[in-house]
Amino acid sequence: MLTYNFENTGSDSLYMYLYKCVKHDIEQGILTTGEKLPSKRRFAKNLGVSIITVENAYARLTAEGFIYSLPKRGFYVADVNKRLNAMHPDFPAASTPITSTVSPSYLADFANNQTPSDLFPFTIWSKIVRKILNDSRIPLMTPSPCGGIFSLRRTIAHYVKEFRNMTVLPEQIIIGAGTEYLYSLLIQLLGHDKIYAVENPGYQKNAKIYQSLHVPCVHVSLDDDGIRIDELEEKQAQIVHITPSHQYPTGIIMPVSRRYELLGWAAREKNRYIIEDDYDSELRLSGHPIPTLQSIDIADKVIYLNTFSKTLSSTVRISYMILPKGLVQPFYDRLSFYSCTVSNFEQYTLASFIEDGKFENHINRLRNDYRHKRDTLLTALNESPLQPYITISGENAGLHFLLTIHTPLPEKEVMLRAQAQGIRLLPLSSFYDGIPTHEPNTYVMNYAIIDMTQVNTIVNTLYQCCM
Amino acid sequence: MLTYNFENTGSDSLYMYLYKCVKHDIEQGILTTGEKLPSKRRFAKNLGVSIITVENAYARLTAEGFIYSLPKRGFYVADVNKRLNAMHPDFPAASTPITSTVSPSYLADFANNQTPSDLFPFTIWSKIVRKILNDSRIPLMTPSPCGGIFSLRRTIAHYVKEFRNMTVLPEQIIIGAGTEYLYSLLIQLLGHDKIYAVENPGYQKNAKIYQSLHVPCVHVSLDDDGIRIDELEEKQAQIVHITPSHQYPTGIIMPVSRRYELLGWAAREKNRYIIEDDYDSELRLSGHPIPTLQSIDIADKVIYLNTFSKTLSSTVRISYMILPKGLVQPFYDRLSFYSCTVSNFEQYTLASFIEDGKFENHINRLRNDYRHKRDTLLTALNESPLQPYITISGENAGLHFLLTIHTPLPEKEVMLRAQAQGIRLLPLSSFYDGIPTHEPNTYVMNYAIIDMTQVNTIVNTLYQCCM
Repeated sequence: MLTYNFENTGSDSLYMYLYKCVKHDIEQGILTTGEKLPSKRRFAKNLGVSIITVENAYARLTAEGFIYSLPKRGFYVADVNKRLNAMHPDFPAASTPITSTVSPSYLADFANNQTPSDLFPFTIWSKIVRKILNDSRIPLMTPSPCGGIFSLRRTIAHYVKEFRNMTVLPEQIIIGAGTEYLYSLLIQLLGHDKIYAVENPGYQKNAKIYQSLHVPCVHVSLDDDGIRIDELEEKQAQIVHITPSHQYPTGIIMPVSRRYELLGWAAREKNRYIIEDDYDSELRLSGHPIPTLQSIDIADKVIYLNTFSKTLSSTVRISYMILPKGLVQPFYDRLSFYSCTVSNFEQYTLASFIEDGKFENHINRLRNDYRHKRDTLLTALNESPLQPYITISGENAGLHFLLTIHTPLPEKEVMLRAQAQGIRLLPLSSFYDGIPTHEPNTYVMNYAIIDMTQVNTIVNTLYQCCM
Repeated sequence: MLTYNFENTGSDSLYMYLYKCVKHDIEQGILTTGEKLPSKRRFAKNLGVSIITVENAYARLTAEGFIYSLPKRGFYVADVNKRLNAMHPDFPAASTPITSTVSPSYLADFANNQTPSDLFPFTIWSKIVRKILNDSRIPLMTPSPCGGIFSLRRTIAHYVKEFRNMTVLPEQIIIGAGTEYLYSLLIQLLGHDKIYAVENPGYQKNAKIYQSLHVPCVHVSLDDDGIRIDELEEKQAQIVHITPSHQYPTGIIMPVSRRYELLGWAAREKNRYIIEDDYDSELRLSGHPIPTLQSIDIADKVIYLNTFSKTLSSTVRISYMILPKGLVQPFYDRLSFYSCTVSNFEQYTLASFIEDGKFENHINRLRNDYRHKRDTLLTALNESPLQPYITISGENAGLHFLLTIHTPLPEKEVMLRAQAQGIRLLPLSSFYDGIPTHEPNTYVMNYAIIDMTQVNTIVNTLYQCCM
């Protein structure tokens, strides 16, 4: 409970001192809008003062608008934001992303690529958590090696063997709190002086991370088969970061021929490596799987990355990388002083979730749900008046496809009109560094969290925005 | 269950193909020593082959020593480590820290500064986890802002107000998966070109992290009051990383005068900042608290860091930093693209644990336990034949004190003798960059996990090693 020290009230009366303390904490944001204050009786008891002291302090705070009372419910902190902003003119207020970034007010938010929360396997997860908290107290308290607990790494080795036909030892697997964190480990392993290449168009956040971590980063363009080898050579790239299973965001599936070309490129120089980001391979909805670069790499050049944030929830921060054998010892020699960034609680829970076959069931459930959503949206688009004006691509994998709308309207205009109708569009052009080379009015359509009961309204609204 | 694809058996018989698959997975470590194989019946059913096929494959694997059977229990993977090592001569085996680093074979391991696992509040933690998994499903699935969920940050703001009299807004608090991770964020915020200073002697891991992240790092020596300001100036340090509440490992508590001097040093140049690492302030066992640098800083120059890994468990990876107001907007502008590295599950659990007053109870329990352990060890030392030969310092805070043993034996000799008797000593000299300036045979005594029922044996053994 709220506590103040009454030893140094100075010349103030007790009630005035208490009034000042609470006022100060409201102004400083320690007590926040809507927060309930202690009842007069409990507060008085806790502070060792009389009820009348608290009553007087509350009365003055109420009179000055710092707090308000609700009949039979008690006292609450009023909205003093304006006052606060006036006090700290250069301090971030509304603009700061301190609260959640979810915007539930959209009719359809195609820019949001979150995993739908209603698909998280809460019942099973809770059961496993309970079991582990009961049965595994000593392992839970035993420090994890830097690369993660052994049982999770062994389970992942099994899993990638079954799912991706990749043969790896648990020692090659490194667990971390998100792929973003693993990039920073990789840079420390591969060198701050290397030239890192990212795809253009691509996930701009990767480039941002490399830049923020102060390593040279170049953008390399794509052709129909994925990243261009000639441009990699020309830009003197040494480490190339790609999404070959389902290029983000174009959806290009890199054919085997380009995969071998790329492996050849890596094999030509000692310091070249490929970071294979397989972020959504579990969610392939149709078509045959193409082997990962990791599984066909005989030159020990591929670092494979994957995450559970896409398949479980973006609020679960567990990713892993699989190092080529030649980088395992250097990793342990140079970076094993780091603590693993994932808590044991979550590592053991996830290991058990996969081991018990629950992860596989969950993936199947996800895939069915996403396939249904994708088909519903595609059907609605193809049966709508928009149909003659659209082209769709990259629809066989992942949680998004590309929609090109053939309209004379400029992209900006379409997006503004859609926004006004509650539809948030994510233009492919925003994934480019430099001038976009694709057709304008191409949008990355993330459909996983779209409300499919509204799909006809959404598609018709979109039609009206484009014509 | 173990699954193999029988579509490409080539010219092999089914049993031979299955034999090769299992053998391969054992050799590659996918199937590990002691692992149970599926029963013949279940395996056959799963693979869609006859039981006799599995029987033949198992028979051959048994004959060649890859697996063994236990009567009425089934088939298990044999220890093929030697074979594995022969296959991958340059691959790390036993030397790799893949399994836990705990060594239960010591009579006393004074180098281990883990939190004792029997003190973790499992019952309460389980209860909160259950409640949150039941009641907070939507918040659990809603992405956390980069700095952490609001309720945890608000709770920490309350907590540092009560506990350390620090007045901060939740917006200033950034949650991360361990302080090591937060350092890398800080470097991105403050600049890769700045000169970072660490304490000498000090926690060498910090210097290692700065070096690994490729920023200039200098070691600055201490006098009796803590880090030397003249040397900071001389070495042109811009960011100084210190442990003023209880210098690690010397235990120096920086007096208020030096704190103000240091704040003055920081205020003199625009790019100077102080990183105040308050890692064990909750565990102060006696003596008055000295205000944190953060709480007396009027020039907006202190970044305050603390962790829950010391107070809860080193396997819980949650730390936080409190930014000075002037760094809040730059942080959000430049680094808010990062995802928070702590899972929502643990953030909400911890927030509730603190809010409900359980954290305070837990800290009190820890302190009592540690005080008791410290007193027991100090009493044993003072009542032992070692007493005339020792000096003790830094015993009022944290989980360790310094023990100087006045003996003509070289440090190395004492340590080797102790090691041979099952006592692991951690010499203060190992915390130095360069030549140690303190008296030899000074040891950092981490006592939290020492078995106090053995304390007299331990102290007597130590005496024998030194004389």
